[in-house]
Amino acid sequence: CVCVAGKVCVMTDRNLAGLPPMRSVLESLVRSGIEHKVYDNVRVEPTDTSFKEAIAFAKKESFDVFVAVGGGSVIDTCKAANLYACHPDADFLDFVNAPIGRGKPITGALKPLIAVPTTAGTGSETTGVAIFDFEHLKAKTGIASRAIKPTLGVVDPLHTLHMPERVAANSGFDVLCHALESYTALPYNMRSPCPPNPINRPAYQGSNPISDVWSRHALNVVAKYMKRYAVRDPEDKEARSSMHLASVFAGIGFGNAGVHLCHGMSYPIAGNVKTHKAKGYNVDHPVVPHGLSVVLTSPAVFNFTAPMCPERHLEAAQILGADVSRAKREDAGPLLADTLRRFLYDLEVEDGLEAVGYSKEDVPALVKGTIPQERVTKLSPREHTEEDLSHLFEASMKLY
Amino acid sequence: CVCVAGKVCVMTDRNLAGLPPMRSVLESLVRSGIEHKVYDNVRVEPTDTSFKEAIAFAKKESFDVFVAVGGGSVIDTCKAANLYACHPDADFLDFVNAPIGRGKPITGALKPLIAVPTTAGTGSETTGVAIFDFEHLKAKTGIASRAIKPTLGVVDPLHTLHMPERVAANSGFDVLCHALESYTALPYNMRSPCPPNPINRPAYQGSNPISDVWSRHALNVVAKYMKRYAVRDPEDKEARSSMHLASVFAGIGFGNAGVHLCHGMSYPIAGNVKTHKAKGYNVDHPVVPHGLSVVLTSPAVFNFTAPMCPERHLEAAQILGADVSRAKREDAGPLLADTLRRFLYDLEVEDGLEAVGYSKEDVPALVKGTIPQERVTKLSPREHTEEDLSHLFEASMKLY
Repeated sequence: CVCVAGKVCVMTDRNLAGLPPMRSVLESLVRSGIEHKVYDNVRVEPTDTSFKEAIAFAKKESFDVFVAVGGGSVIDTCKAANLYACHPDADFLDFVNAPIGRGKPITGALKPLIAVPTTAGTGSETTGVAIFDFEHLKAKTGIASRAIKPTLGVVDPLHTLHMPERVAANSGFDVLCHALESYTALPYNMRSPCPPNPINRPAYQGSNPISDVWSRHALNVVAKYMKRYAVRDPEDKEARSSMHLASVFAGIGFGNAGVHLCHGMSYPIAGNVKTHKAKGYNVDHPVVPHGLSVVLTSPAVFNFTAPMCPERHLEAAQILGADVSRAKREDAGPLLADTLRRFLYDLEVEDGLEAVGYSKEDVPALVKGTIPQERVTKLSPREHTEEDLSHLFEASMKLY
Repeated sequence: CVCVAGKVCVMTDRNLAGLPPMRSVLESLVRSGIEHKVYDNVRVEPTDTSFKEAIAFAKKESFDVFVAVGGGSVIDTCKAANLYACHPDADFLDFVNAPIGRGKPITGALKPLIAVPTTAGTGSETTGVAIFDFEHLKAKTGIASRAIKPTLGVVDPLHTLHMPERVAANSGFDVLCHALESYTALPYNMRSPCPPNPINRPAYQGSNPISDVWSRHALNVVAKYMKRYAVRDPEDKEARSSMHLASVFAGIGFGNAGVHLCHGMSYPIAGNVKTHKAKGYNVDHPVVPHGLSVVLTSPAVFNFTAPMCPERHLEAAQILGADVSRAKREDAGPLLADTLRRFLYDLEVEDGLEAVGYSKEDVPALVKGTIPQERVTKLSPREHTEEDLSHLFEASMKLY
């Protein structure tokens, strides 16, 4: 192999720093005599502060290539580090999504970024999105542009073997919601207004015939393999490979079509976390893992969106194992919601928002944190008011 | 829209020159005040001579962008013109596939090429392949490299409205075979030897989890829409849109995985044409249209390849409407062959190679013309001798 790489920045987190995927990457760089530096201080569920630390590291040196070894947190942090290192004069908020940031288009070229995903969930290796907690708003936001999409993803299921069972389950729920949300997202030809210039086109186009192929296929794989993969037998290589590819497939789908309410509502659920200690996560701060924060509202959300495209909701329910042979269009919402509840129960998911520390008193704060997530919530197939959002959070307090 | 295009080369053929898709393109260029020149001398089923004429045209001027308006012949010719105009010192055979050409890797950058397909068949807008008749060998060969892949495809089903019924049917058969061949191609992890350098990787990788998604999906669309589209009602917009997208989907699939025996054997079938006048084609030379030359051997080919991956052959038969509920693995070949024969009969396809002017005496020449098609035939899931190829041609003389 002829690699001309100059100086490489390898980003990872503290847990992964000593695990086999990182060892493989470092051995490969050493063997090829490629100069590199390691940044292992990525925060799980990154914040603007942790993004800025990584950016400062990247700016200090003149890197030619970035390599991200980790889950979505690492890959997203590395995207931001690459972006701002290549735009040293930009203010941090310049490229952050409006209305929180300025949402400026990225016009300059970035350095190549090679993503080595070690969870089967985010699909971040396929997307132009980098998400972080904006601490003083207690809400997640991000940067979304094709320009920050990794150049290459190295998708090897053996890189996920180290995942604790709950990390595997939660990242799988992220795949499930990527697939369901992108398949039911507002169709591309119903989005408006048309951007004045192609450079202003959003990263998320709405559901379309290309993204549909990926979303539907990913959902089929999740339905077939998720339980085998997450709970039955972690050594089941077929299930592990399939779920790792499903995260890529769903990533291509949602990275193109977009996600909507589950993701939009998940950001304040994660951002307002009080004391919840996530099982299986070795972190020193309270956290509602991303996949869990996304999936907890899914029964309520799809019950709400079903009337806009009942056929797709019925099809999703069927793929997830429901008998839809006698279902009518108006059954689509309740049927998909019930199917999801059963799926989550079988996978031992916490019983709703209450189980991760929320109560009805928190609903106004959760709604407030959802409002700025327009970038995704406007892709909901059904328009919604703040009252609708309140109802969705309330209906998600308990699932079973 | 802000387009900075410099000088544009528009390529098309004589028939299309006066038809609506070309008019739209020219009106758009004139409206935007973009300098352009038209080359409308592309040959349907191009040859090395016709490629060279187009290349000479492209070399004379200094074009910044290429636009191809037409079917596979036009898009492939335009790819070659772009390639050699950007490599003015290269000999024509430098980039032509070995063993006929030198198969050199393309390392320089090409100009952007926008493909506007007007048939729903080749998928050329998605691939890095350009095929032509090498006249003195009476066989087709081509150029295959990611570097010649169009930058953008404008896929509008209204651009296919001008197609005569037989052109629609034949281009649909090309989609069918792209899907079937790529889905049954030798798996990517069974190809060998490994190329010494990534730049030497072939354009065709063998079937893999990504191409499978596209190939299987394209086959489903063909099964659902081909008859509605090609024979029942040419004004059926849903069928027309779906088939146009199916050609793109199958193009992404086979452009990545490759095709095998139907395509490898089709090149001498087209190249050795004697007097066959294709219905619906307004050309002044004998021609076996590409899609027809490909599909005529399909029952024999898939009967032959089925033992290597019977599940996929059964799945294909089922997608095309066969009842596979009681089928055993050893039934896969005959069942898919029968299903294809019925499909072709319903679509009024000529009764085998005899009906396009061949007899058993031609078999040695057809086999001889297949031998140099290694680039594709080596992707067959089943190894084959010259005797096997003879049997396949003989078995394709009559279909019904």
